[in-house]
Amino acid sequence: MAGNENGSARATKLAWVVGVGALHGTGAAVAQRFAKEGLTTVVTGRSPERLAEVVRAIEAAGGAALAAPGDVTNERDLIDILARIDSIGSLEAGVYNAGNARWAPTLELDSTTFEDAWRVCCFGGFVFGREVARSMLTRGRGTILFTGATASLRGRPQFAAFAAAKAGLRMVSQTLARELQPQGIHVAHVVIDGSIHGEKILTRVPELVDRKGPDGLLDIDAIADAYWYLHQQHRSAWTHELDLRPFAESF
Amino acid sequence: MAGNENGSARATKLAWVVGVGALHGTGAAVAQRFAKEGLTTVVTGRSPERLAEVVRAIEAAGGAALAAPGDVTNERDLIDILARIDSIGSLEAGVYNAGNARWAPTLELDSTTFEDAWRVCCFGGFVFGREVARSMLTRGRGTILFTGATASLRGRPQFAAFAAAKAGLRMVSQTLARELQPQGIHVAHVVIDGSIHGEKILTRVPELVDRKGPDGLLDIDAIADAYWYLHQQHRSAWTHELDLRPFAESF
Amino acid sequence: MAGNENGSARATKLAWVVGVGALHGTGAAVAQRFAKEGLTTVVTGRSPERLAEVVRAIEAAGGAALAAPGDVTNERDLIDILARIDSIGSLEAGVYNAGNARWAPTLELDSTTFEDAWRVCCFGGFVFGREVARSMLTRGRGTILFTGATASLRGRPQFAAFAAAKAGLRMVSQTLARELQPQGIHVAHVVIDGSIHGEKILTRVPELVDRKGPDGLLDIDAIADAYWYLHQQHRSAWTHELDLRPFAESF
Amino acid sequence: MAGNENGSARATKLAWVVGVGALHGTGAAVAQRFAKEGLTTVVTGRSPERLAEVVRAIEAAGGAALAAPGDVTNERDLIDILARIDSIGSLEAGVYNAGNARWAPTLELDSTTFEDAWRVCCFGGFVFGREVARSMLTRGRGTILFTGATASLRGRPQFAAFAAAKAGLRMVSQTLARELQPQGIHVAHVVIDGSIHGEKILTRVPELVDRKGPDGLLDIDAIADAYWYLHQQHRSAWTHELDLRPFAESF
Repeated sequence: MAGNENGSARATKLAWVVGVGALHGTGAAVAQRFAKEGLTTVVTGRSPERLAEVVRAIEAAGGAALAAPGDVTNERDLIDILARIDSIGSLEAGVYNAGNARWAPTLELDSTTFEDAWRVCCFGGFVFGREVARSMLTRGRGTILFTGATASLRGRPQFAAFAAAKAGLRMVSQTLARELQPQGIHVAHVVIDGSIHGEKILTRVPELVDRKGPDGLLDIDAIADAYWYLHQQHRSAWTHELDLRPFAESF
Repeated sequence: MAGNENGSARATKLAWVVGVGALHGTGAAVAQRFAKEGLTTVVTGRSPERLAEVVRAIEAAGGAALAAPGDVTNERDLIDILARIDSIGSLEAGVYNAGNARWAPTLELDSTTFEDAWRVCCFGGFVFGREVARSMLTRGRGTILFTGATASLRGRPQFAAFAAAKAGLRMVSQTLARELQPQGIHVAHVVIDGSIHGEKILTRVPELVDRKGPDGLLDIDAIADAYWYLHQQHRSAWTHELDLRPFAESF
Repeated sequence: MAGNENGSARATKLAWVVGVGALHGTGAAVAQRFAKEGLTTVVTGRSPERLAEVVRAIEAAGGAALAAPGDVTNERDLIDILARIDSIGSLEAGVYNAGNARWAPTLELDSTTFEDAWRVCCFGGFVFGREVARSMLTRGRGTILFTGATASLRGRPQFAAFAAAKAGLRMVSQTLARELQPQGIHVAHVVIDGSIHGEKILTRVPELVDRKGPDGLLDIDAIADAYWYLHQQHRSAWTHELDLRPFAESF
Repeated sequence: MAGNENGSARATKLAWVVGVGALHGTGAAVAQRFAKEGLTTVVTGRSPERLAEVVRAIEAAGGAALAAPGDVTNERDLIDILARIDSIGSLEAGVYNAGNARWAPTLELDSTTFEDAWRVCCFGGFVFGREVARSMLTRGRGTILFTGATASLRGRPQFAAFAAAKAGLRMVSQTLARELQPQGIHVAHVVIDGSIHGEKILTRVPELVDRKGPDGLLDIDAIADAYWYLHQQHRSAWTHELDLRPFAESF
C-alpha cells in the first residue's frame, strides 16, 4: 500500500473496497464513486496491475486512492491491510464485493469448487465484516456493505456452491446488522439480480449485451450509485437490504 | 383541485401522493421532497384543510402543488383526480401512502375493522396502481411507490387486519413490477420498520420519543429521501423493495 | 344441516371443512379423509347438491358427515353453522379451503373481481379462523388449517387479485398461529404449488393431465394426507407451514 | 460397518442417518423410526460407542441396523460408507442431521469456529447429498432429508457462524430438490425451531425443561415422525420444507 501515512493524516476519511478487479467492473465502479465523494479509497484484489489501473483512474478524476493487493480468503491479508488503513485515518465505509460465481449440476461439482466458492464469497466476508466492525466501533460510526446475488435467496439448479456461499454471506450480514446497528454501524446487503454490464460479461458473453438491449444489463455506475446511497442514509432510516435489477429483467 | 390547467402546461411533470394527512407526516414529507425536486405535486387525502396546509408549505418553499381531496377507497375519486392530472401534464411518480394500522387480538377484531384495513391499505392501492399505470404506459415511463410495513411480511399477534391488508398490497406491488417494469414503469415497495417521528406518534404516544432517543424514530425527511432515491434510480438498476428502520431498532 | 343433534352426542368429535365443491376436489377429499379417521365431518359450500354427494360418499365408506350449505363470505352463515356444530359435539379440526383463482393483467382487472377474490380467499378465512378459534379455546385444543397457494408468497403477472387475497390469508394464519398456539390450538398453512388433479382441471384443461404425465398433478388424496398429518402432529412439534407440489413441478 | 452384506441381500432397503450421537437425540430417534418401519438403518457419527448403543436399541426393538462410524466432514468417509450401503441393498432414505450450534458475538468469533460450523453443517451436507443422489439416481427413487434450524432463515446476534452454515445447507437442499425431484428423488428440509428435549439440553441446561413445561421442548420422537412422514409422501404431493416447533414456542 502506498500513500500518505504521516501523522497529520488523522482526519483522513477512507473507504475500503474489497473484490476489485477490472477497471470496468462493479468493485472498481464503487471505489471510483466513493473516491469522487471525497473518501480516500483503498482497493483490494489479487492483481496489483488491475488495482494500479483503478488507482490511476481515480487519481485522474481528482480523487485519492491506494492499492492494497491481497487475497480476501486470507485472514492475515485483511487484518494487515486494515491496520494500515487505521494508521492513515478513519474507515468510514467497507465494501465486500468479492465473489466467484460458478455453476454446475451438483453431481458434477467437486468439493474443492464448493469450498472455494464459500471461501471467497462467505468466509472472506465474515473476516472482513468482523475486522471492519472492530475498527468502526472505536468511533461508533461507519457503513459495511455486502454484495449479494439472487442466489443469496434461492438455490436453483447448478447453483449449489454459489447459493450456499452467498446465502451464508447474507446471514453474516444480517447478524452483523443486528449486532452493530444499535452501536451506530450501518450494515447493508445488496442483492444484484441480473447480469452486470462489466468486463466479465463483455469478454465472455458479448452477445448477451445485444440480446438484452440498452440498459438490459446492470450498469456498474448505477450499482455504485446504490452503494453510495446506502452509505449516506440518515441513521434514523437505514436500509438493510435492497435489490437491484435491470428494468427488463424478469423476476 | 386548483392550479394551472391551461394548454401550455403539457410539459408539466407531476407527482401524485396519496395518503397525505398531517403536515408533519410521511405523505406530506414525500410530497414536499418531490415538489422540491421540481415536480408539481398533487396531494390527496380526506381533509381539505390538511391538504391546503401542505400545499401552502410547498409553495412557501418555492414549489408547485395542488390539493386533490378524495377518499382512497373510492375508485371514482382516484379516477377523477387522475383525469385532472393527465390534463395538466405527465405523471412521473405516484406514491401510495395510505394506511390505517389497527391492532387487536383476532378474537376481538370485528369484520368491519378487518375490511376497512383492507380497503384503505390494499384495495385503494390496487386501484391507484392500476390507474397510474394506465396513465404512465402511454409514455412508457414513471415510478409507482407503495408504502409497506413490517406487517407486510409477517403476521404477529394482534396484526391480523393490518398484516393481511399490507401483505395484499405487497403482492399488488410485486405483480405490477413484474407486469410493468419491462414496459418502462418502475414499481417499488418500501418496508417501513419502526415508529415514525410524525404527528401520529407525537400526539398519541409522546413518551415514545423520549424512550427511543434521538434518531430512534424514523425521520420523515429521511423516509422521503428514500422515495426520491427510488424515483431517480437509473433503469438499468432498479430496486423493487427496500426496508427502512432506525439504527436502534431491533429486527 | 341434518344429523344427530341430540344431547347424548356431546362426545362427538367433529371436523369442519369449508370450500367443498365437486366430489373429486380437494375439499371433498379432505372431508373424506377426516371422516375416515373417525370424525363427524361437516362440509360447507354453496351447492347443496354437491355437498349431498360428498356426504353420501362419506356415509357409503362408513363415515359420518353433515351437509351445511353456506356462503363463506357471509359472516352470519359461518357463525350459524358453527353454533350447530358446537351443539353436536367438539370441533377438533377446521379446514378453510375456499378459493377462487382468477387471473388477468392488472390493467384488465376490475375492482369487483379484485374484491371477490379477497372476500372468498381472505375475508372468509378470517371470519372462519376467528370463530373456530373461539369454539376451540373453550376446550384448549383443536387444529385450524388454511389452504394456500404459490400466489400466497409471490405476486406474478396476472395474479394481482389472487396473490393479494392469498397473501392476506397467510397473514391471518400466521397471526392466529402466534396468538393461539400457546393456548393449545394448532394453526397451519398449506402452500399448494402446482395444478390439482381435480374436477376443475379435468373439465377445463383435460390436456394438462396428459402433458404433465402420471403424478404430474397433485393427487387430492395425497393433499388430504398432508392435512390429516398436520392435524395429528404431537403438540411438541407442530408445523405451521408446508408446501406440496408434484415431483415434476419446477419451482 | 458390520452386518449382512452377502449377495442375496440385494433386496434389502436401507436408510442412512448421519449425525447420530446420543441415544436420546434427534439422529438416533430418526434412525429408530426408520428401522421400525422396516428399513435397515445405517447410523453414522463420530463415536462408535454411541452408535453401538443405538444399534442395540434398534435390534432390541426388532429392527435391523448397522453402525458406520465416520466424520461427516471427511468426503472419503462418506463415500466409503455409501459404497458399503450400495453393496448391501438399495438406499431409500438419507438423512443429514449433523450440526454443531455455536454462538458468540461476531467480534469474538474466531475463524476456526466459523469454518468448523460450515464444515459440519454445510460442507458435509453437500457431499452427503451429492453422493446419496448419485446412488439413488440409479434407481430413480429415494428421499434425502436435511435438518435445518431457525438460523437457516435468519441471522440473529451471536449466530453468524451457525446461520451462515445452516443457510448454506438450505441452499444445497433447494438446489438438489430442483435438480433431482423431476428425476424421482424427493429432497426436503426440516426447520427445527425451538429446543429439543434431547440429551444435549438435559445435560447442559436441565432447568430449561422445567421452565418450558411439558411439551415445551421438541420431542425427538415427534421430530422423527415428521421425517418419516416426509419419506412416505406420495410423489404427486411432495413437501420441500416444513417447520417444527413446540406449541408454546413464540415465533
